[in-house]
Amino acid sequence: MRGGYPLPVGPLLTLTTDFGAGSGYPAQVKAVLLSAIPDARIVDVSHEVPRFDVLAGALLLEACVPWFPADAVHVAVVDPGVGTARRPVCVVDGEGRRLVGPDNGLLTPFVGPGARVWAIAPGEAVPAPRSATFHGRDLFAPAAAFLAGGGAPERLGPPVSDPVRLAWPEPTLQPGAIEGETLAADPFGNLVTSIRAEHLGPPGASGVRRAVVDGRLARWVNTFGEGAPGELLALVGSGGRVEVAVREGSAARELGGARGRRVRLELAR
Amino acid sequence: MRGGYPLPVGPLLTLTTDFGAGSGYPAQVKAVLLSAIPDARIVDVSHEVPRFDVLAGALLLEACVPWFPADAVHVAVVDPGVGTARRPVCVVDGEGRRLVGPDNGLLTPFVGPGARVWAIAPGEAVPAPRSATFHGRDLFAPAAAFLAGGGAPERLGPPVSDPVRLAWPEPTLQPGAIEGETLAADPFGNLVTSIRAEHLGPPGASGVRRAVVDGRLARWVNTFGEGAPGELLALVGSGGRVEVAVREGSAARELGGARGRRVRLELAR
Amino acid sequence: MRGGYPLPVGPLLTLTTDFGAGSGYPAQVKAVLLSAIPDARIVDVSHEVPRFDVLAGALLLEACVPWFPADAVHVAVVDPGVGTARRPVCVVDGEGRRLVGPDNGLLTPFVGPGARVWAIAPGEAVPAPRSATFHGRDLFAPAAAFLAGGGAPERLGPPVSDPVRLAWPEPTLQPGAIEGETLAADPFGNLVTSIRAEHLGPPGASGVRRAVVDGRLARWVNTFGEGAPGELLALVGSGGRVEVAVREGSAARELGGARGRRVRLELAR
Repeated sequence: MRGGYPLPVGPLLTLTTDFGAGSGYPAQVKAVLLSAIPDARIVDVSHEVPRFDVLAGALLLEACVPWFPADAVHVAVVDPGVGTARRPVCVVDGEGRRLVGPDNGLLTPFVGPGARVWAIAPGEAVPAPRSATFHGRDLFAPAAAFLAGGGAPERLGPPVSDPVRLAWPEPTLQPGAIEGETLAADPFGNLVTSIRAEHLGPPGASGVRRAVVDGRLARWVNTFGEGAPGELLALVGSGGRVEVAVREGSAARELGGARGRRVRLELAR
Repeated sequence: MRGGYPLPVGPLLTLTTDFGAGSGYPAQVKAVLLSAIPDARIVDVSHEVPRFDVLAGALLLEACVPWFPADAVHVAVVDPGVGTARRPVCVVDGEGRRLVGPDNGLLTPFVGPGARVWAIAPGEAVPAPRSATFHGRDLFAPAAAFLAGGGAPERLGPPVSDPVRLAWPEPTLQPGAIEGETLAADPFGNLVTSIRAEHLGPPGASGVRRAVVDGRLARWVNTFGEGAPGELLALVGSGGRVEVAVREGSAARELGGARGRRVRLELAR
Repeated sequence: MRGGYPLPVGPLLTLTTDFGAGSGYPAQVKAVLLSAIPDARIVDVSHEVPRFDVLAGALLLEACVPWFPADAVHVAVVDPGVGTARRPVCVVDGEGRRLVGPDNGLLTPFVGPGARVWAIAPGEAVPAPRSATFHGRDLFAPAAAFLAGGGAPERLGPPVSDPVRLAWPEPTLQPGAIEGETLAADPFGNLVTSIRAEHLGPPGASGVRRAVVDGRLARWVNTFGEGAPGELLALVGSGGRVEVAVREGSAARELGGARGRRVRLELAR
């Protein structure tokens, strides 16, 4: 449609942090990236991960990263242990996606089968960090720029065979029912749960007969708009996980918290 | 000044939503846009429209969209009815600006004289949405990418002759006075009103003799800096609407709400 | 690593304001910039400077601007006096960095030795502002676009010999101790202080024996991770200033405010 287009473009990088968009910290990361890669295209996934909440960051990465072109480089920093002994790492997942971040479980969704992991050791590819407190700017951004510029991940440091993995919450499959829990809230107060669409089996969403959250009945719907305002709902969300929501309200507030609410789905089979 | 410049650039797209900038949802929209149009330039207008507040979103679009180059494509999603029967639409306004969003009144400022509207029907141009809950990513982003890539709006779906329009609040013009109301707050708590600069007639701002908001006198000024700290002010704002403000304070808080405060301007004519 | 790359790029501009990212105001500034400079690369430093807090804005600029390539143009607007007699100015600092903003002290970190300052007077280079209330869009953005496009700063207006400087807080150096104060909080509640790393002398951070904040002992550490959760800490932050922090907590909340908490460092010399 546009003759000769699209134009040639520079590398794509994304940022996912708990820094706060307005804090100036994401801007410093971008300044480092743009100094190294002037033609970088940078997308903010979020700088509002709940502070130090590694699981919430991991769930956000799980929901967002797969939508980006596979050659993007993802910088992820939710890092309560910055400056301590936790390793900085680079992950190349089974589909070739590249991520850099702390080895504290944040990258758990990408260290499955086929993934390779390297430590990021200051050296030839990445200089020693200038601060002990801001590895996003001083270590992860240079590592991401190195990768985005075409550098091989194995040049960042030695391979890691035991990356930290979160005890990723999995639901319990029972005869005729699935039991899981809520894990994190989005800004609307919708709660993602440990139950994924594939757990529902071949009938998918249509196989759910009843949903119960912390003992309260939730209406099983296909989309928020089917609920009445204020009604407690459960549905398969846009990220492929079962979610709990309140139409035009906040399930997190209604249920008194984002994490650990018990969710039971009864199946018609 | 820069010989041979500016460089060739890709399409310009803007995003206006109530998703929350840090939610990951805007990032997923951008991922879809950049997958389709790698050289896209994407500007966030806002992801902090008050949740589900279609009028606030419409006012924000009215204030912002005209400042962008006319060939930009605007994605607007404030959509309490996602997944239900409300139509997704593409609007081309009287000046050729292109917008996509739900047909729920959000695009009211752009469906005036000369506007043309099409439904977005999954088909040749845009695939069927992958989720029932995230049309921003699964329907509007592909439609915007189609338009930004040079696709004709009539290929998105059938024409729409009856787009939903908000009952757009208009002031009452009386002999020697104008009566209107506050409509929405900006993050400072400044309130835009239903009174626009053109309602003031040829003398413009200089013809206003007295401003009264909910029975309280407001000082009519040209700029915030003329008021005393804490003083209730009224003025023609940067978007061409009369605004109510409190210098170094919040008019929304002072008046106990953003919407429906009565505003009376007495004119010297 | 990428043959022939990086691609040619357009000018780099940054934005630092108290507008609120979701207000629509930053988007209008960007629309003006992109209309003038289609190939501009625009980075948000912050739109969440505490409203009207000129010192907080100046500290944020001090921390962020030096990380960007020296040919970037920086737009800074924290401007309680918009529309009044305060001058709009362009600063070229001793290292050639270019900034535009109100002459209210916001640019203090850049008007040191070697800096040159010009008023921005509507004229040949920049048109008269269209509004009295939004100079960010109507005056500073056009001025920044003029500079980014290669325009000479002296064409913006007459030279200014007496730019407004904040009474920049400096610590008191005593025999064996330094006394300063907290100045501003980041979104984590970490407090930057008036004490900079260079005040610590040649031994640097290792020369600090004891830190006391408002009479309470703070543990002097190299990085947040060394503290126990909830512990009051002091350290040299990533911006080169001494900071006060609470691990996994907010020092601003713990100490009851962001500004004016007394900080005393006792030195082992």
